[in-house]
Amino acid sequence: MSDSDDDAYEEPLFQRVIEYAAASDRDVVRMVSGHPDWEPPAALREGLKAYADGDPESFQYPPREGIPELRGEIAERRGVEESRVVVTNGAAEANYLGMAEALDRDAGSEIIVTDPVYPYYPGRTTMLGGEVTRVPVGDDGHVDVDAMRAAASTDTAAIVINTPNNPTGAVYSRESVAALADVAADVDAVLVADEVYDHFDFSGRFESALTLDRDHVVVTTSFSKALGITGFRIGYAVFPEALIEAALTRHTLVNVAVSRPAQAAVAAALRETPPSYYESVRDTLRDRIEEFTAALDAAGAEYTTPEGAFYVLVRFDDFPGTLENVKRLVDDAGVAAMPGAAFGETYDEWIRFTLCTDRVDEAADRLAAYFDGQ
Amino acid sequence: MSDSDDDAYEEPLFQRVIEYAAASDRDVVRMVSGHPDWEPPAALREGLKAYADGDPESFQYPPREGIPELRGEIAERRGVEESRVVVTNGAAEANYLGMAEALDRDAGSEIIVTDPVYPYYPGRTTMLGGEVTRVPVGDDGHVDVDAMRAAASTDTAAIVINTPNNPTGAVYSRESVAALADVAADVDAVLVADEVYDHFDFSGRFESALTLDRDHVVVTTSFSKALGITGFRIGYAVFPEALIEAALTRHTLVNVAVSRPAQAAVAAALRETPPSYYESVRDTLRDRIEEFTAALDAAGAEYTTPEGAFYVLVRFDDFPGTLENVKRLVDDAGVAAMPGAAFGETYDEWIRFTLCTDRVDEAADRLAAYFDGQ
Repeated sequence: MSDSDDDAYEEPLFQRVIEYAAASDRDVVRMVSGHPDWEPPAALREGLKAYADGDPESFQYPPREGIPELRGEIAERRGVEESRVVVTNGAAEANYLGMAEALDRDAGSEIIVTDPVYPYYPGRTTMLGGEVTRVPVGDDGHVDVDAMRAAASTDTAAIVINTPNNPTGAVYSRESVAALADVAADVDAVLVADEVYDHFDFSGRFESALTLDRDHVVVTTSFSKALGITGFRIGYAVFPEALIEAALTRHTLVNVAVSRPAQAAVAAALRETPPSYYESVRDTLRDRIEEFTAALDAAGAEYTTPEGAFYVLVRFDDFPGTLENVKRLVDDAGVAAMPGAAFGETYDEWIRFTLCTDRVDEAADRLAAYFDGQ
Repeated sequence: MSDSDDDAYEEPLFQRVIEYAAASDRDVVRMVSGHPDWEPPAALREGLKAYADGDPESFQYPPREGIPELRGEIAERRGVEESRVVVTNGAAEANYLGMAEALDRDAGSEIIVTDPVYPYYPGRTTMLGGEVTRVPVGDDGHVDVDAMRAAASTDTAAIVINTPNNPTGAVYSRESVAALADVAADVDAVLVADEVYDHFDFSGRFESALTLDRDHVVVTTSFSKALGITGFRIGYAVFPEALIEAALTRHTLVNVAVSRPAQAAVAAALRETPPSYYESVRDTLRDRIEEFTAALDAAGAEYTTPEGAFYVLVRFDDFPGTLENVKRLVDDAGVAAMPGAAFGETYDEWIRFTLCTDRVDEAADRLAAYFDGQ
């Protein structure tokens, strides 16, 4: 376990790699960020067009908690009271609200995260005046529940997890998440469960923390990945009754409400998109995982096979996951990826490849050729 | 001058009045909140539809600072470096960022506002851990620069003003704003100038604080009112060079970026909407001001004539601006408005009527009949 007040977070590093790749003279396969490259549901486009023809009143402030047709649909699908749901500006704002309200209870100033971790969590903690504690995951990329329990104390305000996990691809077991909810309850902390990749479970084991039905749990997610619309910025959080009012107040003071055209489009997409859409995206990703890892096998590299989400961590011999090495791959292999060091220490020997491109086989061939030629 | 840690803010009170009016059996003219009732520019609707037909890549994360076609257009129109502009989730987020970064400089924890004041400013201050100082405006509804100067000290982190002003309708003189920028510079504070009503200047005197070209000034605004789209949540802030990076970091950690469909629609509207659109909306509002105040004259009520924005404050004899009296007007006069007490003490004898309805004459007649019959 390591303490850190590191306030680095993903975006600028993302940007640096993306800009570096964009400035390259050569063709580069982009596997840096989690931008879906697949087609959004047809109903989403249609919903946006239908919204564009609405009357002026439909262009005005939506309810701060979200438009009823979206919030209601979410509550029904998730089997929760509508009063516990707040539609947010992506999972980012949902996590911000969850972490801020956990800290605002005056029940501790520490936020416990895993290592590796999506860098926005520690960045947000520092911004909110909290202290970050990072707890390394196990060798299998799964959360180490015993180590999390040992780290937790009365100073713990929140435990933040992400399952299916970015970057390890682990899908945490229901038992692990329940145990972490127990830990949170024991020390009067909040378990914030970011489930933004919930539609990308290849293990068949994913269960939402909402099914635990606990008072100390905030569940956050977004439609960014599920509907292929990271730019729409529509997410939501399900808060326990005790925290929803404070969360809505903060949401109102920061954002007032969430952009209505995007809310209307997502509501239409939710209503009208058949399950086959989601299955077909999952099938595409399954194929990409297979193609990419088969080629990595051929290259003799060590890698993680994602149980969920759409990232593969790869370890090449004597080639740590630094920004410098990632730039080298752009220049010399024509593949752009994220340094594992961006996520902490545990995977700093690794490089994260995102499967949001239909050129994963080409990327794998380029990597194989590059490391073969070294 | 009065100190207050009051964390009330407008939205819930708005909601309560709106819900009360909606639940009424009788027909009610709604003059509560600043929801434009006029048609948005045609190019906005077309821009949204064109966006809906874009490729999947155009549906993904926009740059955190805003899409280039919008940010660039803003910078050019405002005559500022593009690097100082951040597109925000409405003026709400712009003000949140301005106030948060003012406080985060470790140069004081007090935020000075006027009284009356748009209640989000004190609410946000309290949320951010700052202390609010309210300085009454003059009898003419204009900021009292001398009193603001007297209130400012080294503990002042920010002075927040709104011009054209909600609720007094005052358009502050260039000299007043420059003097407040001087005060801010003298005590190492930030002047946050919320200019969200900049398109609604009937005085011909409004000049943006950007024209002062000062280091200690953050200018915030939005397209909510100018384009009649409060639900789109597209605003922006122009920061001094010294604060923009910190503001972008906070913006990223809270929201990542702003909803892209709305950004694309606003960029199209900015490019293609002729000046006649804005003039015609101003003409409509001018007519409404005249109609409404003429009827108030007939009713013998005291009122403010807005130099800018679209609110009229009215004082009826022995009828203070309480929530109770506002409910009485809904029930007995069929007109819904905002209690002046929601904005502080200075105008707590007044009631604020919003001119976002084409039934202002009817409302005025109803009010005249009601107070005549009392």
